[in-house]
Amino acid sequence: MKHNLQDTISLLTRTPAALDALLRDLPETWTFRNEGEGTWNAFDVVGHLIFGERTDWIPRVKIILEFGENRTLEPFDMRGHERESQGRSLGQLLDEFARLRSKSLGELRALNLRQEDLERRGRHPALGVVTLSQHLATWAAHDLTHLHQISRLLAHQYREAVGPWSAYLGVLQCAGHSSA
Amino acid sequence: MKHNLQDTISLLTRTPAALDALLRDLPETWTFRNEGEGTWNAFDVVGHLIFGERTDWIPRVKIILEFGENRTLEPFDMRGHERESQGRSLGQLLDEFARLRSKSLGELRALNLRQEDLERRGRHPALGVVTLSQHLATWAAHDLTHLHQISRLLAHQYREAVGPWSAYLGVLQCAGHSSA
Repeated sequence: MKHNLQDTISLLTRTPAALDALLRDLPETWTFRNEGEGTWNAFDVVGHLIFGERTDWIPRVKIILEFGENRTLEPFDMRGHERESQGRSLGQLLDEFARLRSKSLGELRALNLRQEDLERRGRHPALGVVTLSQHLATWAAHDLTHLHQISRLLAHQYREAVGPWSAYLGVLQCAGHSSA
Repeated sequence: MKHNLQDTISLLTRTPAALDALLRDLPETWTFRNEGEGTWNAFDVVGHLIFGERTDWIPRVKIILEFGENRTLEPFDMRGHERESQGRSLGQLLDEFARLRSKSLGELRALNLRQEDLERRGRHPALGVVTLSQHLATWAAHDLTHLHQISRLLAHQYREAVGPWSAYLGVLQCAGHSSA
């Protein structure tokens, strides 16, 4: 499946409502527990998604369009959300994620990107040359990697409770692969 | 985290709306593609969830409560949804899943299960002795295993499109572990 901008936008549009439906007012025994030391809980993940809207997705689109390969993209701060999330509720974070995503998509649509824009190249600090198309596809896949992570970290809380059924539940065999 | 019936119900209540928010009217390039031969697409997964509402979750609760270990639970038919889903739209399946889940939860609440009920034992055809508590915890974890699967199978469609970022996306390292 090639990257299709409209398909990407369709997915990106849906993520805030999907997370809201899953997480809002869910008991904190689900949403404030993680998978062990150094891992994130659902609250952390939503904070990270907010931080990405602010500092990564549209900002990098603009840098690629304006500077191409001549300006290396800023490294993304994987802990950047921590201070911003402090003292806030999960409901507040879900509201903010929805608001920022909507704003991001408004900016994306306003750019009226054409095929030749999608082929523009930028320079990633670790990965080297990347295209705008790859960046936008990654935005959608990044939503999915965190939905995947949230489903896994929630399921982890019931690892013991399911008893012998754990052998049948694929999500409980998932080791996480990476931070997400 | 021990099994808590109210936490289980909270999760089970949210799954239909979360899947609806994610999948309804999402382009078919996302929802009707799978991860390769013999795997499910998102439409298949929702069909499977519907079939579970009909034949697995509440029916097994009733058998455990009525017969305990004296009656072995019916094996679950992993292909049972195929015929029922034929000719239907994903929107229709999402509607039906929401309706059946709501009905299931109404029946579950009406049973007014007490702690001693949750300790009742049944006999699984492959796993042997299981408790009602484990069965109910598995219901919630099963929702999560399929949310995990859906996020993975959607992300799979962009495996090529993300280019070098694939190394950073945990969901693309997930091999699936089992059918889900």
